[in-house]
Amino acid sequence: MIGRAEVDHARQRAAEMLARTGLALTPEERAHIEIADFGLGDLEHTGLQLVTYVNNERYCAKDLVLFPHQTCPEHRHPPVGADPGKMETFRCRSGMVRLYVDGPPSPVPAARVPTGSEPYYTVFHEIELSPGDQHTIPPNTLHWFQAGPEGAVVSEFSSTSRDELDVFTDPRIVRVPPSPM
Amino acid sequence: MIGRAEVDHARQRAAEMLARTGLALTPEERAHIEIADFGLGDLEHTGLQLVTYVNNERYCAKDLVLFPHQTCPEHRHPPVGADPGKMETFRCRSGMVRLYVDGPPSPVPAARVPTGSEPYYTVFHEIELSPGDQHTIPPNTLHWFQAGPEGAVVSEFSSTSRDELDVFTDPRIVRVPPSPM
Repeated sequence: MIGRAEVDHARQRAAEMLARTGLALTPEERAHIEIADFGLGDLEHTGLQLVTYVNNERYCAKDLVLFPHQTCPEHRHPPVGADPGKMETFRCRSGMVRLYVDGPPSPVPAARVPTGSEPYYTVFHEIELSPGDQHTIPPNTLHWFQAGPEGAVVSEFSSTSRDELDVFTDPRIVRVPPSPM
Repeated sequence: MIGRAEVDHARQRAAEMLARTGLALTPEERAHIEIADFGLGDLEHTGLQLVTYVNNERYCAKDLVLFPHQTCPEHRHPPVGADPGKMETFRCRSGMVRLYVDGPPSPVPAARVPTGSEPYYTVFHEIELSPGDQHTIPPNTLHWFQAGPEGAVVSEFSSTSRDELDVFTDPRIVRVPPSPM
């Protein structure tokens, strides 16, 4: 778990990247940017910054911020009752992000798996998203993503989000809720 | 119905407003920005420019562009089978937009109903949205909106969109599909 100062710093950095992209936040939103270190305590390498604009029983919308080379680790969104699992569309707004999904592995994936976490990355079909590019992830399918050298801001449009139920390939991962931070 | 030249001009203007806001489009998206004049042939006053990023059986996401003082006319999204009707969240990204919904009418609404269309505007509870502000419209409820003096760019997050089924208060309105333009 990362400390208060690191969370505050990450929030400020994420807010600046959103502002540079042209995506305005209210002061309250800025103060509550979600900082997810996935319980690994190594935010700089494995982490994600999120602003959730709406999440109801029908749809969800977030803007995601990734620092340079930061990785959101491999996971899937499992079925929940009648829901086949979260389906989501990533649209790159600024910077560049490489998305990895199930499919023919790219011969030389450009992203580097975070050191020490190699066993927990299993899908390597690479999709590079620059501003204006987007890709939709079907429910219950493995995916992970990593920002390029300048980081990335990515809009996520999806069905209902239930982050606490996400299944990560890395058993060490805990999808830490934002409240105790 | 508006002509080809006016559609092209509106597309260029909308693309510039999106670019100024920081929202990148691919060349193909730019060439296909939807220009909706609602069949009134008076785009400058009653109209909307739209980019639909995704619209599937679960969720939809669009960016809307409104020119200065342009109005999206009063309508609702009716139930369709088991679907209670489209639910949507408007988030202002740049400029300013005034949204009118059912509820206590504002004593002096700031927006002006397009001349000649006065009988077809019936809800006057005003919600002003500046960048970072958002509001969610419940299914099957009347609403309309008008941009401020500098226009507006608004992200719309919603359940499945079925524009062709929208019910407009103004019986003259035809929600023109983009393809014949």
